[in-house]
Amino acid sequence: MQKNVYFETLGTASLNQLVQNGNYSKIIVLVDENTHEKCLDKFMERTPFTIDGIITIKPGEEHKNITTCNMVWQSLADFGCDRKSLLINLGGGVVTDLGGFTASTFKRGMDFVNVPTTLLSMVDAAIGGKTGIDFGVLKNQIGTITQPKLVLILQTFLETLEKRQFVSGYAEMLKHGLIAKHAHWETLKQKQLEIDADDIEASSQVKVGIVEQDPYEMGVRKKLNFGHTLGHAIESYYLEHLTKPTLLHGEAIAAGMILEGYLSHKVSGLSKVSLDEINKVVSAHFDKIDFEKDEIPIFIDLMKHDKKNTHGNINFVLLREIGNAVIDCKVSEKEIQEAFSYYMDR
Amino acid sequence: MQKNVYFETLGTASLNQLVQNGNYSKIIVLVDENTHEKCLDKFMERTPFTIDGIITIKPGEEHKNITTCNMVWQSLADFGCDRKSLLINLGGGVVTDLGGFTASTFKRGMDFVNVPTTLLSMVDAAIGGKTGIDFGVLKNQIGTITQPKLVLILQTFLETLEKRQFVSGYAEMLKHGLIAKHAHWETLKQKQLEIDADDIEASSQVKVGIVEQDPYEMGVRKKLNFGHTLGHAIESYYLEHLTKPTLLHGEAIAAGMILEGYLSHKVSGLSKVSLDEINKVVSAHFDKIDFEKDEIPIFIDLMKHDKKNTHGNINFVLLREIGNAVIDCKVSEKEIQEAFSYYMDR
Repeated sequence: MQKNVYFETLGTASLNQLVQNGNYSKIIVLVDENTHEKCLDKFMERTPFTIDGIITIKPGEEHKNITTCNMVWQSLADFGCDRKSLLINLGGGVVTDLGGFTASTFKRGMDFVNVPTTLLSMVDAAIGGKTGIDFGVLKNQIGTITQPKLVLILQTFLETLEKRQFVSGYAEMLKHGLIAKHAHWETLKQKQLEIDADDIEASSQVKVGIVEQDPYEMGVRKKLNFGHTLGHAIESYYLEHLTKPTLLHGEAIAAGMILEGYLSHKVSGLSKVSLDEINKVVSAHFDKIDFEKDEIPIFIDLMKHDKKNTHGNINFVLLREIGNAVIDCKVSEKEIQEAFSYYMDR
Repeated sequence: MQKNVYFETLGTASLNQLVQNGNYSKIIVLVDENTHEKCLDKFMERTPFTIDGIITIKPGEEHKNITTCNMVWQSLADFGCDRKSLLINLGGGVVTDLGGFTASTFKRGMDFVNVPTTLLSMVDAAIGGKTGIDFGVLKNQIGTITQPKLVLILQTFLETLEKRQFVSGYAEMLKHGLIAKHAHWETLKQKQLEIDADDIEASSQVKVGIVEQDPYEMGVRKKLNFGHTLGHAIESYYLEHLTKPTLLHGEAIAAGMILEGYLSHKVSGLSKVSLDEINKVVSAHFDKIDFEKDEIPIFIDLMKHDKKNTHGNINFVLLREIGNAVIDCKVSEKEIQEAFSYYMDR
C-alpha cells in the first residue's frame, strides 16, 4: 500500500499535489451541516484549486443510510461527475464512511480523499479504506474496502470540536495503545486529555501500520476491533432505541474496552492489575452506562449478526497484556454475562 | 487474474470444488421469477451441496435498481449471511449485475458465483467483474468492479431461451469478432444462428482474454464498448420512455454497431466494403429501429453522461478493420448525425 496519510498544520500541500497530477474532471466537496458551518471556509481558504460543487448531508449516524447515498449519487450526477472526478470528504466518520462508499460505487469507482475534522476520524475512521453505511439496526452492513487516494489531517480542525466529541475520539487512541503500543498507552495515561499533535500522529500511525499489513482484515487487522464487538452491539441498540440517551461511538467503545478487558482477564491471561488499570484510566473520562439486565441477551443476539462474526460464532479480540492483543478468541455467553456484572458493580 | 470461467455440459464440478474448499457459512441462490421457474430445478438437481436460501427478484432491467438491492441485502441479513457466505447468481445480466453488486457490498464483500442462463450473459455480462445497478435514466451508474469467484457456464440453460433473447446475445458474439477476432466473425457470418457450444466458448474467451489484460478498464478493455456508446444511449432512452417498444440490450447494441461502423468508416479507416458487410450481417437478424430526427440530440446528451466519458468528451471505440479496434476516438456531433442518416437510409 502506498503512503497516503499526511499530517499538515499549515497548508494542504499533499492534496494540492494530488489535484495537480490528477487532471480531475470535477472536484466536489462533501460536508454535513456542521462541517459546512464550522470547517468548510477554513478548508477552502487553504486550497488553491477550483471546487466545482458542495454536497451537504444531514449530520449524525442516523443519516448514514441508503437514502442519503441516493441523494449524494444524484448530486454527483447533477454536477456532471464522471469516473475521473474527485470527491473530498470533509467531516467526521459519517461523512468519510458514507462519502467513501458513494465514491467507490459511483460509475464503478471515482477517487476520493478524506479530510477528517474530528479526533475520532483523524486517528481511526478516515484511515484504512473501510467505507460503508448502516442498514437497519446494524452498523456498516453495506460497504466496500476501498482506499482513499489521500488522508489529509489538518490539525486546525481540532479547534472546532466540542469536548464530548474530543473525548469520544480519545477512546480510540486508548485502544491503539492497548492493542499494539504500550508506550502510547503510558503517554495517554499520563497526559490524560492534554494530548498534542504528536500524540495524534502516533495514534493514527498505529492504525496505518496495522492496515498496511492486512488491508482486507484477514488476520492482524482484526486487532483494531478490541472493544468493538460488545461496543458495536451497544451502539447499535442505543441508536435504534430513541428513548435511550445519545451514545457517541467512543463512549460505546469505552464501555466495550472495560467489558472486553474483563473477558481478557478471564480468557486470554490479562493480569488483574492491568484490568484494574484499564478500568481506572477509561473510567476517568467516560461515565458508566446504565445497562438493564434484560438488555444483555439483546446485545448477544446483535453480536451474532455483526459482520465480523462468521458461522454463528462470536469472535473477540482480547488482550494478553497491555500493548499485546490476540484475535479469534471464543467466549461463552456466561462469561459475557459476568463481564456485564463486573462493569456494573465496579 | 485467476482462471475463473468454466464450461460444463453435464455437471457442476468446478462449483462443487469451490464449495468444498470454501467452508461457506451459508449458500444462497439469487434468481428472478423467470429463472426461478425455468432454471432453478435444473440447477439444484446438479448440485450436491445444501442451499440455505433462495432469493427471488422481479425480472427485467427496470428492476435493476436500489430498491431491489435493499430487498436482497435484507434477505441476506434475514438468512443470517455473513462475510463468509456465498451468493450464487443464477440468471441473465440483471441477476448477475445486481447480485454481484449486492454481494460485493454486503458486509463489505462476500463471495459470489455467476451461473449465466442467457446467451448474452454467457458470452458477456457474467464475465469480467463489472457489477452494478441503474440509477435514474442511466444504466449501471452505481456499481463496483469485483470478480466473481467463478463463472459456471452450463449449456443446458440455452434450451430455456426464447429466440429473441438468443438473438440479443448473438449481437455480443458478433461484437467480439469485430473488435478482436476476424475468424470468429467469419464463423458467425457463415453459421448465422446455427452456432454451437464451441462458438459460445470461443466468444466468451475473447472477453476473458481482454479482461485479464485490463480488469479496471484503463485501456484495452474499452474495446468491449464498441457499439455500446450509442447503443447504451439508445437503450437508456427506450427504457425510460414507456410508450416506446421494448428494446433488448443486444438489439440496441446491434444498432450501435451499425452506427459506430459508419463512424469507423468516416474516422478510423474502416473500408466501405467492411462497413457494408457489417451492415448486411447485422441487418439479417436485427430489425431497423425507427428513430425520430429530434431524438438524436437526446442520445448525444445521454452519451455525455455515460460513465465511460470523462471531461465532457464523447469517446468512441471504432474499427480499423474487422477484428481490429481502436479506443479513444473523437467524433463530432455532425458525424453522429450523419451516422443516423446512414442507418435510416440503408
